[in-house]
Amino acid sequence: MPRAWTLHSRPKGMPQLGDFALVDQPSVPLGENEVRIANRWLSVDPYMRGRMNDVKSYVPPFALGEPMQGGAIGEVVESRAASVPVGTKVQHMLGWREEAVLPAGQVQPLPPVDVPEEAFLGQFGMPGMTAYFGLLDVAQAKEGETVFVSAAAGAVGSTVVQIAKAKGMTVIGSAGGAEKCDWVKSLGADAVIDYKPGNVVQALAEAAPGGIDVYFDNVGGDHLDAALLAARMHARFAICGMIDIYNEGQPQSLKYLAKVIGARLTIKGFLVGDHMARAADFYADMMRWLGEGRLTREQTVFDGLASAPDAFLGLFTGANKGKMLVRI
Amino acid sequence: MPRAWTLHSRPKGMPQLGDFALVDQPSVPLGENEVRIANRWLSVDPYMRGRMNDVKSYVPPFALGEPMQGGAIGEVVESRAASVPVGTKVQHMLGWREEAVLPAGQVQPLPPVDVPEEAFLGQFGMPGMTAYFGLLDVAQAKEGETVFVSAAAGAVGSTVVQIAKAKGMTVIGSAGGAEKCDWVKSLGADAVIDYKPGNVVQALAEAAPGGIDVYFDNVGGDHLDAALLAARMHARFAICGMIDIYNEGQPQSLKYLAKVIGARLTIKGFLVGDHMARAADFYADMMRWLGEGRLTREQTVFDGLASAPDAFLGLFTGANKGKMLVRI
Repeated sequence: MPRAWTLHSRPKGMPQLGDFALVDQPSVPLGENEVRIANRWLSVDPYMRGRMNDVKSYVPPFALGEPMQGGAIGEVVESRAASVPVGTKVQHMLGWREEAVLPAGQVQPLPPVDVPEEAFLGQFGMPGMTAYFGLLDVAQAKEGETVFVSAAAGAVGSTVVQIAKAKGMTVIGSAGGAEKCDWVKSLGADAVIDYKPGNVVQALAEAAPGGIDVYFDNVGGDHLDAALLAARMHARFAICGMIDIYNEGQPQSLKYLAKVIGARLTIKGFLVGDHMARAADFYADMMRWLGEGRLTREQTVFDGLASAPDAFLGLFTGANKGKMLVRI
Repeated sequence: MPRAWTLHSRPKGMPQLGDFALVDQPSVPLGENEVRIANRWLSVDPYMRGRMNDVKSYVPPFALGEPMQGGAIGEVVESRAASVPVGTKVQHMLGWREEAVLPAGQVQPLPPVDVPEEAFLGQFGMPGMTAYFGLLDVAQAKEGETVFVSAAAGAVGSTVVQIAKAKGMTVIGSAGGAEKCDWVKSLGADAVIDYKPGNVVQALAEAAPGGIDVYFDNVGGDHLDAALLAARMHARFAICGMIDIYNEGQPQSLKYLAKVIGARLTIKGFLVGDHMARAADFYADMMRWLGEGRLTREQTVFDGLASAPDAFLGLFTGANKGKMLVRI
């Protein structure tokens, strides 16, 4: 019987393995226009932490005792929809499980772009688009400008670094620990801050003595404060995630927020789904950069459905370089 | 001998009367192209608190032992500049003193707009322009939208309320104490929050159950947090001032900052000086609204140069309704 991970209890602070339960899911017969998918790759992402709380947000909370959801890639193994025949490789949002059943309208056949299928959960999927639209459209980063990106060893951050370099920007990244910092440097970053010793504010001031024009925020907290202090006049902040607070429920304490006035800063939050009108530009640019050798696609893979909670929890302890994936 | 207020010591936290010293200033002879002005009206403004600190900001710090500066209106009593003859009523930035001497290029003759001269330090001057450009240009507030403005009994906030009503918006203001709340209501606000009992977050949630489209921030802190929680999708925040923190040097603690992502908020800081290209629109709209009876011009006047520090300190204890002025 296919299995699925359900949310067993709502975590307070950092989730524990006991908050998840692996259960058997009876295989249901297909309704009209539905398809059955054998999942091959599952995505785990920081935003899922927010769905584990019982609060209304931009995505609804996971229901207790129900299979969780998330990005997934698999192959159609049974179909009652002419538009999506058996054998089609598709992407959809019913991850955290071996088998998914859903209407054909809720699956996307993989785009005709020549990269390994799991790339559509990473650099050629949601995280890559988040990097591309956030940097170029939301923050309006331009050639010659200086960009600071937090969590630069993550799926989104590492792609921000590479897109910024491809576009002729100066890039400062932050990452945790010497190994990841070296890797971010190898992606082309002009400077890398190790956030583990603390004092990100001072480290950024030293790494960017002339200030920054753009901040791509994946973490909030100290990193955001450091960026406020370092911001040049008219700097733009694209706020993509605040991983620091997903697990805390604590207020964020900002010492330099008033800088927003004197430096006329613009701080914009965004969700990748609002920018899909430019998806074709994204694929075209990314394929060109890939061909020019400007993109390094890195992923950290956990094997087997059973490892999914470990993979997810690893996002918050910095266990991943690049995109974190579960292979079934 | 004309007198002037100097900065005697740099305050920590809330300034004290002892931080100011009233000194005699020898009358200097005019240089070529200079004018001597007998000041009639002095402006005191919250931003001046920032200039009392020895830190680089968008305006340089006041020098210890030197006369302080600020908006002022007076009459030219001696002139070595043909362009600004004796008798001209002018506005300039050498306030906090009875007599100002400065180059003709640094004084502005009062605009040909038929309002009392001191109005050019308030609703028809910097505070009024701040309200107008912040609400309409920075926050892009539109007819039919719901606007929240903090410090709504202040010079800027009270003008935001009236412009928003003139433009057909729903307006919620915050003010301290029943008397000021009643006054803000009388200006046309649809609802007023009294911030003195605390819990601005809950009060705004009750006053704006459907949420807000625009927040005009004069104070930061709890008010900003309340606005984050109440923000509708794609709401815009114009950050004008953070009076709460001028005196504290304390970090701001924000519980709802992550809302910026899910609701795709835009938070923009601004300075009024960047928007002067639209000054003619400002005067035209304000004169029309004044003629239509849509504007109430309120001011709190302290008499005599000696009272200037008291007037200034009163800004932080809520002693003013509308614009705070010193009349000489």
